[in-house]
Amino acid sequence: MKCAVDIEARDVEEMYINIDPIQAGGRLTAEAMKAAISFGDGYSVCDNCRNPPRLDYIRNPPIAQFHADLAAWLNMDAVRVVPGARRGFQAVASTLVEKGDPVILTGLAHYTEFMAVEAAGGIPREIPKDERNHITADAAAEKIEAVIREFSRTPPLLFVDHVDYQFGNVHDIAGIIKVAHQYDVPVLVNGAYTVGIMPIDGKALGADFVVGSGHKSMAAPAPSGLLATTNEHAERVFRTTQAKGDVTGRTFGMKEVEMMGCTLMGVTVVGMMASFPHVKERVQRWETEVAHSQAVTDALLSIEGTKVLSDYPRKHTLTRIDTRESFDKVAERHKKRGFFLASEVKKRGITGVIPGSTKVWKYNTFGLTEKQIRHVGESFIGAARDNGLNIL
Amino acid sequence: MKCAVDIEARDVEEMYINIDPIQAGGRLTAEAMKAAISFGDGYSVCDNCRNPPRLDYIRNPPIAQFHADLAAWLNMDAVRVVPGARRGFQAVASTLVEKGDPVILTGLAHYTEFMAVEAAGGIPREIPKDERNHITADAAAEKIEAVIREFSRTPPLLFVDHVDYQFGNVHDIAGIIKVAHQYDVPVLVNGAYTVGIMPIDGKALGADFVVGSGHKSMAAPAPSGLLATTNEHAERVFRTTQAKGDVTGRTFGMKEVEMMGCTLMGVTVVGMMASFPHVKERVQRWETEVAHSQAVTDALLSIEGTKVLSDYPRKHTLTRIDTRESFDKVAERHKKRGFFLASEVKKRGITGVIPGSTKVWKYNTFGLTEKQIRHVGESFIGAARDNGLNIL
Repeated sequence: MKCAVDIEARDVEEMYINIDPIQAGGRLTAEAMKAAISFGDGYSVCDNCRNPPRLDYIRNPPIAQFHADLAAWLNMDAVRVVPGARRGFQAVASTLVEKGDPVILTGLAHYTEFMAVEAAGGIPREIPKDERNHITADAAAEKIEAVIREFSRTPPLLFVDHVDYQFGNVHDIAGIIKVAHQYDVPVLVNGAYTVGIMPIDGKALGADFVVGSGHKSMAAPAPSGLLATTNEHAERVFRTTQAKGDVTGRTFGMKEVEMMGCTLMGVTVVGMMASFPHVKERVQRWETEVAHSQAVTDALLSIEGTKVLSDYPRKHTLTRIDTRESFDKVAERHKKRGFFLASEVKKRGITGVIPGSTKVWKYNTFGLTEKQIRHVGESFIGAARDNGLNIL
Repeated sequence: MKCAVDIEARDVEEMYINIDPIQAGGRLTAEAMKAAISFGDGYSVCDNCRNPPRLDYIRNPPIAQFHADLAAWLNMDAVRVVPGARRGFQAVASTLVEKGDPVILTGLAHYTEFMAVEAAGGIPREIPKDERNHITADAAAEKIEAVIREFSRTPPLLFVDHVDYQFGNVHDIAGIIKVAHQYDVPVLVNGAYTVGIMPIDGKALGADFVVGSGHKSMAAPAPSGLLATTNEHAERVFRTTQAKGDVTGRTFGMKEVEMMGCTLMGVTVVGMMASFPHVKERVQRWETEVAHSQAVTDALLSIEGTKVLSDYPRKHTLTRIDTRESFDKVAERHKKRGFFLASEVKKRGITGVIPGSTKVWKYNTFGLTEKQIRHVGESFIGAARDNGLNIL
């Protein structure tokens, strides 16, 4: 089937078990798929937009209620939906960071945090990871001290990834925030791999901002996400416009500057909403997801020479694996070279391993069934055995 | 049918002829609807993202080609897709405007332009509209002179709406740009009501930037849009990141700061792409669309007391009408008050007239068939006649 002239219909999720590191949490639910069909048209949620004319006040579909539900779910005071987590970073950085300000992020920070800092004119400074690939509260304190010495002022913002994109490690966010607050540094928690994936309590973490990604982790279409904050910061980050036309005298009421007015006017917000009941329920099954991750990781570790670079035992479904001494040895002599691994697992109905990767790579088991998990583990072992590797 | 717990499936476009001012150009094509189903999953277009890892380089689906096609179609040098026209304004203002800079826009500028200026720390100054509700080149020149006198420097940016949201008037963009360029002021053309609606030649206009809206005018899901520019400005607005981790030494390659890396990773970009062949074709039928707009406007004007506030004869499908001396007189004595008009036309299968409006309101006939246009005109006349108004 062709969607249009040149666009092949995508059937990855129908035809394969997908263990792509970034795609696992963004697969739509059946409810979101129905909503996508129903709310595909551009400004489809604006039919009943009245006064004040702003997305988060719309009552049908129940977008206003969704905003309140999101805030309660994350235990934060105020939430807005945004076009991707990165637009949440941008809104906060644009508000808190002045040109030339130092901004702290970490050695495991996602590149989009660097983009937000750069766009605001800030100067990025990283908290180093330790030898366990963790960001610790002590390292955060040291970096804050170092930045204060270097810039003779306190950084206006600190970004930290709840779970980092490189190792899928869960960091001591509450500890880092506690330290940051001792220096009066507000903290943005990047929950792109956690909001919609595992339970989060923003107040328990002490977070000033929690940012989530709809298309990465809330079973929603792209680009979507959320920015949650406390009453303390909401007034500033969600400030309404002060602009006034010098000739017409026009003012623009309740429109929020950092949101550019409204954000997700159709399929994106309704997709998030439609998946939300399922998302709330799935975070409660987090222990099962972790067990699944552990099972696949253990299957890989049973292949002689394989090492896991992420925390072990696993505490998240995103895992970084080192197969330089196993699959990469096969690649050296295989006629398909490094492409043999993706090819071997694809033959077994699995996709998401980057073609060509046999050294250090990542996979994400989130959302797979028990049976799929077993099949993924067995498939890696089968691919290894068929290519002469020892199974321990 | 329910999409999910609380979301009623939307059936406005199936059940009614929709003349809502902002929704007409954003209805999906059948091709975009198919694409929405196929690419609903979060990061659905990233299956084949390799090197460099950036949205506009992806070849399957053919997003790279789509970018090139968009640029050629608009006769501009470079294009990026963005999460709505407003995010295009934001990218340009964030690049060109420093805190305290005066920025020129117009007395008919959309509020999102004010948001972009305010977020960048700029000071908005409006070119007044003339008595015909037009922005003229002469008025632009006067305002530039006035701003130079007031700020002792040239404004770094001028926004102008190709067709304004208030009257749907087509403004003398080429003339305004010619004047602005005499002062070395770059011009951003807000094409939210024109890109995807009527033919546009960016070079013929002399535009430094052309911004379009996917969900308003390119039959695409929200939020989507495009930012087109010339080689002269592309390097600056689409600059790649210079950020570097002070500890890790990480750099971020080809990621573009103002785009925050990638923008539309799924249904939104594929929706734009799937509709694009149709969109290219429909702008060629612009004269027919204008004739349709004229026909409905003439039907309304045949109701005694009605006045059109937009240019007449009509040159666009968005029209502002004054029914204070016709429908509003009915509202004064009708038991439904101002709600009678929306109710009367809804009975006739038409939606998009804001319930309660009988004074000054807007409609957009874009995309309706000949037969639907006749029905809309006859329905307004019928509503008038049934409520005792004279038909001229």
